[in-house]
Amino acid sequence: MSARNLLRLTLVARRSASTASASQLGFIGLGNMGASMATNLAKAGHQVRVFDVSRAAIDAVVAGSEGRASAASSANEVVPGASAVVTMLPSSKEVTQIYSGSDGLLAASKGNGTLFIDSTTGEPGVCEKIAEEAQQAGAVYIDAPVSGGVVAAKNAQLTFMCGGPKSAFDIAAPLLAAMGKKSIHCGDKVGSGEAAKICNNMLLAVSMLGTCEAMALGKHLGLNPNNLAEVLNASSGRCWSSEVYNPVPGVVPGVPSSRDYDGGFLCALMLKDLRLAQSAAAQNQVSTVMGGLACQIYSLMCAHGLAAKDFSVFYKFLQDQQNKSN
Amino acid sequence: MSARNLLRLTLVARRSASTASASQLGFIGLGNMGASMATNLAKAGHQVRVFDVSRAAIDAVVAGSEGRASAASSANEVVPGASAVVTMLPSSKEVTQIYSGSDGLLAASKGNGTLFIDSTTGEPGVCEKIAEEAQQAGAVYIDAPVSGGVVAAKNAQLTFMCGGPKSAFDIAAPLLAAMGKKSIHCGDKVGSGEAAKICNNMLLAVSMLGTCEAMALGKHLGLNPNNLAEVLNASSGRCWSSEVYNPVPGVVPGVPSSRDYDGGFLCALMLKDLRLAQSAAAQNQVSTVMGGLACQIYSLMCAHGLAAKDFSVFYKFLQDQQNKSN
Amino acid sequence: MSARNLLRLTLVARRSASTASASQLGFIGLGNMGASMATNLAKAGHQVRVFDVSRAAIDAVVAGSEGRASAASSANEVVPGASAVVTMLPSSKEVTQIYSGSDGLLAASKGNGTLFIDSTTGEPGVCEKIAEEAQQAGAVYIDAPVSGGVVAAKNAQLTFMCGGPKSAFDIAAPLLAAMGKKSIHCGDKVGSGEAAKICNNMLLAVSMLGTCEAMALGKHLGLNPNNLAEVLNASSGRCWSSEVYNPVPGVVPGVPSSRDYDGGFLCALMLKDLRLAQSAAAQNQVSTVMGGLACQIYSLMCAHGLAAKDFSVFYKFLQDQQNKSN
Amino acid sequence: MSARNLLRLTLVARRSASTASASQLGFIGLGNMGASMATNLAKAGHQVRVFDVSRAAIDAVVAGSEGRASAASSANEVVPGASAVVTMLPSSKEVTQIYSGSDGLLAASKGNGTLFIDSTTGEPGVCEKIAEEAQQAGAVYIDAPVSGGVVAAKNAQLTFMCGGPKSAFDIAAPLLAAMGKKSIHCGDKVGSGEAAKICNNMLLAVSMLGTCEAMALGKHLGLNPNNLAEVLNASSGRCWSSEVYNPVPGVVPGVPSSRDYDGGFLCALMLKDLRLAQSAAAQNQVSTVMGGLACQIYSLMCAHGLAAKDFSVFYKFLQDQQNKSN
Repeated sequence: MSARNLLRLTLVARRSASTASASQLGFIGLGNMGASMATNLAKAGHQVRVFDVSRAAIDAVVAGSEGRASAASSANEVVPGASAVVTMLPSSKEVTQIYSGSDGLLAASKGNGTLFIDSTTGEPGVCEKIAEEAQQAGAVYIDAPVSGGVVAAKNAQLTFMCGGPKSAFDIAAPLLAAMGKKSIHCGDKVGSGEAAKICNNMLLAVSMLGTCEAMALGKHLGLNPNNLAEVLNASSGRCWSSEVYNPVPGVVPGVPSSRDYDGGFLCALMLKDLRLAQSAAAQNQVSTVMGGLACQIYSLMCAHGLAAKDFSVFYKFLQDQQNKSN
Repeated sequence: MSARNLLRLTLVARRSASTASASQLGFIGLGNMGASMATNLAKAGHQVRVFDVSRAAIDAVVAGSEGRASAASSANEVVPGASAVVTMLPSSKEVTQIYSGSDGLLAASKGNGTLFIDSTTGEPGVCEKIAEEAQQAGAVYIDAPVSGGVVAAKNAQLTFMCGGPKSAFDIAAPLLAAMGKKSIHCGDKVGSGEAAKICNNMLLAVSMLGTCEAMALGKHLGLNPNNLAEVLNASSGRCWSSEVYNPVPGVVPGVPSSRDYDGGFLCALMLKDLRLAQSAAAQNQVSTVMGGLACQIYSLMCAHGLAAKDFSVFYKFLQDQQNKSN
Repeated sequence: MSARNLLRLTLVARRSASTASASQLGFIGLGNMGASMATNLAKAGHQVRVFDVSRAAIDAVVAGSEGRASAASSANEVVPGASAVVTMLPSSKEVTQIYSGSDGLLAASKGNGTLFIDSTTGEPGVCEKIAEEAQQAGAVYIDAPVSGGVVAAKNAQLTFMCGGPKSAFDIAAPLLAAMGKKSIHCGDKVGSGEAAKICNNMLLAVSMLGTCEAMALGKHLGLNPNNLAEVLNASSGRCWSSEVYNPVPGVVPGVPSSRDYDGGFLCALMLKDLRLAQSAAAQNQVSTVMGGLACQIYSLMCAHGLAAKDFSVFYKFLQDQQNKSN
Repeated sequence: MSARNLLRLTLVARRSASTASASQLGFIGLGNMGASMATNLAKAGHQVRVFDVSRAAIDAVVAGSEGRASAASSANEVVPGASAVVTMLPSSKEVTQIYSGSDGLLAASKGNGTLFIDSTTGEPGVCEKIAEEAQQAGAVYIDAPVSGGVVAAKNAQLTFMCGGPKSAFDIAAPLLAAMGKKSIHCGDKVGSGEAAKICNNMLLAVSMLGTCEAMALGKHLGLNPNNLAEVLNASSGRCWSSEVYNPVPGVVPGVPSSRDYDGGFLCALMLKDLRLAQSAAAQNQVSTVMGGLACQIYSLMCAHGLAAKDFSVFYKFLQDQQNKSN
């Protein structure tokens, strides 16, 4: 970040801080996650101009905002007057389309030092490119993908993983606090948030699949699943998947395994993140033997009609035949 | 367990409880682990007759026991007069050799209701067979493999995973408490302790390999390892391997990764446990796709000369070439 | 093979050669494969005493033998008077049970230099042990597992893979020729036939799974399966599975893929062979990364109800969902 | 291909056929492969304008062409007057850069119906896009990646796998015949040649890795490698890797395994092709479980310093430690 951009940003920050309850923001991307995030920003007292390709999505957010959200008729229209703009898009492809070029968001910010906070889950390399373009356009761009699903978004309980200069992170933090419970600064390099997220999700997939196999093996060896979970959680096999989100129905109340794997973090979304990880690994010449197999397993489960089931459904998939006969 | 054996065992238990500081025990198998375990039993005030194929190993334990350990000249010689006998052997093969048949430990117990506690890491199926034979011989056999390595054995900080009737477990518990910090009753079926241990270690291997890959990917994406570990440990990728035993040198002080992967839980031992898991899975018709690949990876690392390194060395193995040039 | 046994065997061989059309044989194990093999020996003019645990199986072979097969009432009863005995059993476990010990086949041969030809698919290590015991009992034991299924057995078109001294192989060869089209001497060590068979079948599984994936990928990329098969078979991807036994329906007429994967070489049998390979690899400290994954994939397919389908069904399993919707 | 372009192409074809020995061609990309291919076109009597980013590469081809190759000072300069232009570039990225846009090759062809034959190994999807752009520009573009390495290129022994309309393939065929021994029309869709090539190479990788494991397992079970290769090649494990290019030194004379895996088809290139396959599989929602693991294994071997060794070196990698000690 150049000294000039940093100065602009600091001025913006002071302005925001002095008028915290009335800062002007932009928000683009009002899907399941984005709509809740924009609503939470409005609830926290901010004025938010919102845009989505679906007019109905815009209207719904505006209607639920107690007068603090207003409709924009294009993505670029949310920029003028906004100290910060949050984007929540389907993938890196849309990020490039909306931010980049002479008709993009960065150009629309006209060198006013706007802070762009991108919560899209995407490729670290794309974030780096947009950040460079932002700097040339007199704007600041950081990545801030989230962990936690639709329910966490609604309840402002998301975790944000952020990449970019610490100074920019510090300015973004109060806004993120209106949408989540925690923000982690993952690195000064833009894209570090995305990088941390795909590493986390790759490890999550591997440990979930391992947990499913360990629980299935234990069951076939005659162990009671609750006993086995207790042993694992007191031992070196302990992981988030065994403790908090156990894939065996009945071991942990309220998680997707206990409602036939409906809802939760869908196999299709895990597959998407694993493919981002595989792509990042290939570009950076890293071997990920277990992560690669995890990616194939989720691909196979999606081919078997489980794309819309929770990612812990591998426990059931492993033992498909037995379930049919029981 | 038959009513008759249970009665015998209860009587033995009462006898033990009333004379807790002076009960007579047997111990067979004085390797790195067993020698410390026998010593801790003696330190706790028990009289222990000890045997090993190595006379030197016997002498060392006797010498360090403040007069409470005595040498036996054969395995069977530890049995007469002992209310309980603990065994810590290399594998299921030795368990069968020593316990079974007309010249084995069970026969030597002469129907006196001796409690045999087997801490060998082995096959659940073998434990079941020995338990049946024990019942016929008027003895009681439970399995109680340990978690924690040589240091934990020395400091009486082992965790015991036990399989067998709850009544037998309750009688064993005070003895186990002299050698460890925790005992878990994994199931009423003898072999449940072994079953839980191999499930745990399979999950441990999978999550460790996944942690190594996630940390390596993050490093190549420009993340600081400490930052990434912090993110994982606050997120859904959290596991024992990321939190307590991180495979990247410097992230967690004092673990094997910080001393070039020396000591710790050796790849060769992890491979042995993974093979037990694969064997149990095959016998019980369970698929363990990730566990199977983990087994192959440890086999490959052993073939590359890493058998005597800690099992977290996969982080280094993944990036072999870079380490050579750096 | 000791000089004494070899002499006996040579004498037996001369006797057999001089009376080729009337030699006395034994045959144990009259399942789908064994019944056809015994029948073909009888058709070739030999007198064959046959045994199986199923009386009906014995009767069927005797009935179809034009008077040259006769019923034995126990396994050992086929031995007296026989120059050679062929066994075709379910697994190594039955081989040990029937051959070994004071009441086994080897003892029943009473040092008469009987040649035992074992066509069971089993563990090389078990064959070695039986061969040693045979030598002590004054008999000769070689392994001769087969390739080719039920149809090949019926039409005397099997391939035999043999392990044992060349002199013993030469004596066995004319008998094998009555049951198959080809016999290969794989090595002088008994067990070499089993070893070669499990190596072959592991490679078969790997290349079949790879062929299924290549054909599925090509289809999704818009290639005509016949065109792609032609390219593969003219290029470095060529293998038995792509050329002779293509897993895509319609590419090669008459193979199981063209009749919804019915019949053929069942997934359950391939899984059995892959487990033998994994067991042999573990005992010999060899890594088989692809072979290990192949084993897991067949285990998963069996859990999904495909145990009784041909092993090329992975092509369908890979794309399960699409098949459902089409 | 539109009727108008096809007409143009047919006219060009007639012109070429009538003056076969003197047609004017263009060639771009004079690396190890391309230089030999361009030289072979010149040797066959064609006039070839050649271009490369390296002036030295251009000069070498011109010098060895007996006056039939001439230097171009830019890529576009090879187009005017050429009935056909062959490109042999590092990857799809360079294909897009050179062909596409208002300053690209397609624009430079000025609607004259030039036939572009692209022998780059790349992504089928990119070929499709360039073919569409070609049609709009009044040109014809087909893909024709090659199989066979540097030696085959030098000796005009390449195999071409072609995608595009049959009529265009027929026109290209005589030119391809000057550079190779065989051309296969893989499909009418442009990109079919690339698709077939990546399917073939994925299967090649899987079957080579499987062959290495089967040969290694056999060796550890005591089989002579020549015997085992003979068995495999007479059985269902037979594949190109076992028959023609066996990975065990000494089994097939003259292949890379017999010269310490030097030369041949490098691991780094196989890894590149496997990544193309993984990318194509992900885009088309196909699972490739074995192909995915093969990709990871080649990545791991490259990380272990084997990038410049032949792809059959996995046989050695599998048994690294033994080789060190022997």
